[in-house]
Amino acid sequence: MGRRKNRLMSIVFTDPGTLSHDAIEEGDLFAPRFDDHGLVTAVAVEASSGKILMLAHMDAEALSLTLSTGEVHYFSRSRGKLWKKGETSGEVQKLVEIRTDCDQDALLVLVEQTGRGAACHTGRKTCFYRKVELENGEARLASTGEPRLFDPDLVYNR
Amino acid sequence: MGRRKNRLMSIVFTDPGTLSHDAIEEGDLFAPRFDDHGLVTAVAVEASSGKILMLAHMDAEALSLTLSTGEVHYFSRSRGKLWKKGETSGEVQKLVEIRTDCDQDALLVLVEQTGRGAACHTGRKTCFYRKVELENGEARLASTGEPRLFDPDLVYNR
Repeated sequence: MGRRKNRLMSIVFTDPGTLSHDAIEEGDLFAPRFDDHGLVTAVAVEASSGKILMLAHMDAEALSLTLSTGEVHYFSRSRGKLWKKGETSGEVQKLVEIRTDCDQDALLVLVEQTGRGAACHTGRKTCFYRKVELENGEARLASTGEPRLFDPDLVYNR
Repeated sequence: MGRRKNRLMSIVFTDPGTLSHDAIEEGDLFAPRFDDHGLVTAVAVEASSGKILMLAHMDAEALSLTLSTGEVHYFSRSRGKLWKKGETSGEVQKLVEIRTDCDQDALLVLVEQTGRGAACHTGRKTCFYRKVELENGEARLASTGEPRLFDPDLVYNR
């Protein structure tokens, strides 16, 4: 198992700089366009409901680990390191499918959200729990009514 | 109408640097966290179907114009300028609702996708028309079967 994991962990992605515009947009080579910080944007979506859970980033290692282990990994920009989703909270995301967009700089990650079903560290299913309302030219936020599925103070021992 | 538009165009957003962590995550002040390039990531979703259409970026001007005009604007990183979605193709996105995520560095933009219903410049409804498949440790792309709703060569006069 250790050998198998190590082999699968070393997934090599095609460098988009070696591909034509047409090959990037219409071809069958996976050539994620990592930015200057080595990251691609990933939108996590609950496969069963189609609900958008969160937006995060992956570096090549996180993407490779996600594909090889079937559990979603990200790169935490705030902590500056690899982050297995749910490693603290238990809200692990099981990979269902990854899709790439036309220019391959963004990923759609279809997942099964395990645990209590809360992708957000605030305890809610989704991070998008507030909507913008415009009143007299001023933009304010209002709740969408998204309930908390866990108490973050308990889960993160704060 | 001109005066109204000008007044609404000047929406001022709260600087997240002036807010506490709690106010950013749980408060009712809209304080989009623009990055070093002055951009936030925006995920456009078809309001009627919940389908993810595309991922793009907005600067303060694009966000302000989107809220004030009700038509979605982005900032094109490749062209380095403001971009009203659909200005060439006719595939205008009518704004239904904007949601922000917990740390306010990403937006979910619910839209009515007008025109032929194709958000992607390749003529497809969504930019996410290919999925990653892992075969013998190699990642390749396969079509999700997303049909083209227009011919990009005709629409963009190429």
